[in-house]
Amino acid sequence: MRTIDWVDGAVELIDQTALPAELRVLRVSEVDELVAAIRSLAVRGAPALGVAGALGVALAARQFTGDPAGLAEAVHRIETARPTAVNLARGVRRAAARLPEGPAAVLAEACTVRDEEIAASAAMAARGADLMVALCGERPRLLTHCNTGGLAAVTGGTALGVVGELHRRGALAGVIASETRPLLQGARLTAWELGQWGVDFRVAVDSAGPFLMARGEVDAVILGADRICANGDVINKIGTYAHALGARRAGLPFVVVAPESTVDADTPDGAAVEIEDRGAIEVTAFSAAVNPAFDVTPHDLVTAIVTDRRVIRLDLGERL
Amino acid sequence: MRTIDWVDGAVELIDQTALPAELRVLRVSEVDELVAAIRSLAVRGAPALGVAGALGVALAARQFTGDPAGLAEAVHRIETARPTAVNLARGVRRAAARLPEGPAAVLAEACTVRDEEIAASAAMAARGADLMVALCGERPRLLTHCNTGGLAAVTGGTALGVVGELHRRGALAGVIASETRPLLQGARLTAWELGQWGVDFRVAVDSAGPFLMARGEVDAVILGADRICANGDVINKIGTYAHALGARRAGLPFVVVAPESTVDADTPDGAAVEIEDRGAIEVTAFSAAVNPAFDVTPHDLVTAIVTDRRVIRLDLGERL
Repeated sequence: MRTIDWVDGAVELIDQTALPAELRVLRVSEVDELVAAIRSLAVRGAPALGVAGALGVALAARQFTGDPAGLAEAVHRIETARPTAVNLARGVRRAAARLPEGPAAVLAEACTVRDEEIAASAAMAARGADLMVALCGERPRLLTHCNTGGLAAVTGGTALGVVGELHRRGALAGVIASETRPLLQGARLTAWELGQWGVDFRVAVDSAGPFLMARGEVDAVILGADRICANGDVINKIGTYAHALGARRAGLPFVVVAPESTVDADTPDGAAVEIEDRGAIEVTAFSAAVNPAFDVTPHDLVTAIVTDRRVIRLDLGERL
Repeated sequence: MRTIDWVDGAVELIDQTALPAELRVLRVSEVDELVAAIRSLAVRGAPALGVAGALGVALAARQFTGDPAGLAEAVHRIETARPTAVNLARGVRRAAARLPEGPAAVLAEACTVRDEEIAASAAMAARGADLMVALCGERPRLLTHCNTGGLAAVTGGTALGVVGELHRRGALAGVIASETRPLLQGARLTAWELGQWGVDFRVAVDSAGPFLMARGEVDAVILGADRICANGDVINKIGTYAHALGARRAGLPFVVVAPESTVDADTPDGAAVEIEDRGAIEVTAFSAAVNPAFDVTPHDLVTAIVTDRRVIRLDLGERL
């Protein structure tokens, strides 16, 4: 099952706000609906957002035929629906570059973005599983944060795809999924995917991760990225940085798995990235809250970055 | 208003599970009810637990007159209702030492424990506020974790008592209260107390703390303890350790405020402390979860420990 796809002239996507209670597919045929789905996190995860952006331009090309101003405005709205993950804007720009050739060319490019992400997931799973065994030995106990499975990509996933591959190889001793407040992508989505795959797991509150590492219950941390800067700084779900500090203090590998489409050579470091603040209401009923949705993990806390094409051992001095 | 007190022959306590929706006072006249209130966290916080333990023995001395076996068993049940905070067992043992003198002597000792905690809160507020200004300058922006206000003590509090004192002095620029999953003592209780005091605050998800420090939004971390070991290791609400890592990385003071009754010279270090696991149900509807309720913060991550009698600057090489 694909998280997002083009089906009979419209975008179909799994509504991730409804999981795990309900596996509901949204059919989206207008740009406004797609922007709303991106903003509400009905579709989320860097690779999936890249595909959503590209397919969104395909929708726009059909919806705004003969209205170049409306089309440009629609493309801009998709591109800026969320600010932090590089994939969304990049997917939009790739598809938009084909607009002069007409809607069919745009759709072909969007489907290529989709197919590349499917291939990238498979490549990351193999590379990442090999690396985890090399770093931790056979049957590591892994901790992961947020959701980086098939739901975050098209199929397979990034970091959770590696977890799944280790499970298929019989080379996984356990997984702790941090719940990932405020929207509980770990407790809702990662737990659901691991359950579907038959992988044993435990859910932990986010703040327990570093302590579980200190207590010796974790062999490595593996998670995804929304943007990887030119210097190796990793922008990812809020809480990633706290887990990196825990891994460093415990002497554990801290491995980031992301497709090359998430590596952003145009962003020098984490300080250059806009961190989305998603407002108070997600956190509490209190009106005063601070809710950064992502954080910056400095490159010197990262052991390795695994993409579909490379393993970059930052700990060994390798650079992007 | 006192969080817990002896009123007309019974223990009265604010039911902290009902806040902030309702300010409800429980009247407890039997040991079983008190043990249930401790286990459910209707009464919680190290100083308040010490008072609850001592008053519980006063209840037991009345309830089990002429039944020494029943009395001994009741005292043991109170002492072991929760394992991690040293105050509970210590309060129980202080009151129980007076059992040979009869119920009135036990009650007098329990009221002394209560009065000492009230005095300790006032002393900590003054000492802690002075220290924070010395460490951070005037008007620091503080981050606190869990609840350490009047609700955790009898009146005043520990770390949050210091926050309140800085507010009264006009020497506080802001407070971030981490929500403190899974039971949200920060979002429910600390937010409620700060609101009552008229202190501006923002609530953050627990995993955001280290990143907010890295981003320069915090001048110091201030929080409480459930037990302080002989070497300075601090046992406190899960997430304390992650915040300590964040403070260390950001070069910020990390200050622990607790009464001397929380300092446990008989526990050499954090490895010797039983960390309560409160079970899966608090975390999620999933049956598989890991839920350590406390963690261990190594002493080398602690800037200073403030008690009612001392400021121990661990960062300057001072020792307990």
